[in-house]
Amino acid sequence: MPLFLFFHSVHVFLSSLRPLELNILGNPRPSRLPHGHEVGVVGHGPMKTSRALRADTLTSAVHVWKFTMAAVKPVLYSYYRSSCAWRVRIALALKGIDYEYVPVHLVKDGGQQHKEDYKTMNPMAQVPTLLIDGLTLTQSIAIIEYLDETRPSPPLLPSDPKDKVKVRMIAETIASGIQPLQNLAVLLQLDEDKRPAWGNRCIDTGFQAVEAMLSQTAEKYSYGNSLTVADLCLVPQVYNANRFKVDMSKFPTISRVHDELAKLEAFKKAHPSQQPDCPDDQK
Amino acid sequence: MPLFLFFHSVHVFLSSLRPLELNILGNPRPSRLPHGHEVGVVGHGPMKTSRALRADTLTSAVHVWKFTMAAVKPVLYSYYRSSCAWRVRIALALKGIDYEYVPVHLVKDGGQQHKEDYKTMNPMAQVPTLLIDGLTLTQSIAIIEYLDETRPSPPLLPSDPKDKVKVRMIAETIASGIQPLQNLAVLLQLDEDKRPAWGNRCIDTGFQAVEAMLSQTAEKYSYGNSLTVADLCLVPQVYNANRFKVDMSKFPTISRVHDELAKLEAFKKAHPSQQPDCPDDQK
Repeated sequence: MPLFLFFHSVHVFLSSLRPLELNILGNPRPSRLPHGHEVGVVGHGPMKTSRALRADTLTSAVHVWKFTMAAVKPVLYSYYRSSCAWRVRIALALKGIDYEYVPVHLVKDGGQQHKEDYKTMNPMAQVPTLLIDGLTLTQSIAIIEYLDETRPSPPLLPSDPKDKVKVRMIAETIASGIQPLQNLAVLLQLDEDKRPAWGNRCIDTGFQAVEAMLSQTAEKYSYGNSLTVADLCLVPQVYNANRFKVDMSKFPTISRVHDELAKLEAFKKAHPSQQPDCPDDQK
Repeated sequence: MPLFLFFHSVHVFLSSLRPLELNILGNPRPSRLPHGHEVGVVGHGPMKTSRALRADTLTSAVHVWKFTMAAVKPVLYSYYRSSCAWRVRIALALKGIDYEYVPVHLVKDGGQQHKEDYKTMNPMAQVPTLLIDGLTLTQSIAIIEYLDETRPSPPLLPSDPKDKVKVRMIAETIASGIQPLQNLAVLLQLDEDKRPAWGNRCIDTGFQAVEAMLSQTAEKYSYGNSLTVADLCLVPQVYNANRFKVDMSKFPTISRVHDELAKLEAFKKAHPSQQPDCPDDQK
């Protein structure tokens, strides 16, 4: 078959699939996706979403092919040092899910997450947003629970409800009890000179609770010797603790588990310093 | 059998059970439970935890019997208008789980949740804490997920992962994205005159997102026509919206769903005004 005929048949096949994939299953139409962001295809350098994701501007079969891959491959809207995006990156890495990385800069241009196109996908104007299985997903813990239900290996929650609830308690303590309090939205409400002390105090207080919990549950990891969603929450929170100069020597169990987790390949791959939107001076 | 022999045999039987129930399964020993709080046994008026829960001070078989009931029956440490305790109260009511209500006053005496005895159970010094099945549980969403797994009727999550994730997204948007930001800990960091505007703005911004989500998912309730954990989060958040004078006319879907939920018996029973620690002027 001549090459152009092959590309043509791919194009025709995709055209027939696209309405099904993008509309019935609930993903926004391509024209509603944000464009103009820099896209780092993990391992393939940056390109523009306007070319990667907008079918209506594609002019060659090669671009059709790239679009197909973007439609089939999960897409993660992320910011390199967002705790919530980071949790999901670890889950994706642990489960071996390949994905396209689209940076959303939370500060530049007044915050790219506030653009109307992006808010159509993520009405809270936050990262992460994950496009997967024809769904547009937000909220890190909900996403991780979904990934765990649909891709059970390796599991991120124990199977016994009495264990599962303890893991979820640790995760929720961080995800609802610590991280939102030291997040940008709250910090901006405080006088600038009060922010470091407030961030430090929120994490310090919260980590006293997490240390108490982990001292009863941790072995190699936060809950026994298997990785769980609690570990996915712990690592980004320790990073924030260090940013806010929390004295981590007060939290020996957290520190020990963190150091153990940091050795794992999936955790290394998900680290902010490894993301395409990480500034050079933080790599 | 003479009455005293009956009580004696109950006492002996309980003494043999107690170490198993309270230690191996992870509940704190009675001596580590907070005492001196007023206890409202739902439907039976107030009494003292020092008498209801402290086995070592019990002097009569009647008290042994009360202690048994407290050990077997779930115990909820709650504050009448805490959103998180309220979510769990709705879940308990929907699932028909009878429980003992122990008020923890979040303001009086500098906050009873900060007492060391209480923090042994709940290291974040928050409500709710639920003693059930020999476990000491904290964190409202983790608790509700546990209740749903162990008492599946009526279900509070859909069975299909693609539906389940959408419900969890709504719940997490409220539980991590809105409620923690307008909670007491954050408000106390702000100058007093700034607090009402901040609370209003957090909920208003968050509700714009929730309204957008519900406009796609709600029918009679937040997600279709079955009750879900999203509804359990929604109702207390609307109560807070009203406290902070949020203009609810901007959120017609939230308002409609809220009004529908407010008609249900379980939601009426869980309302702050129906709790034993609700001040008379708020009943």
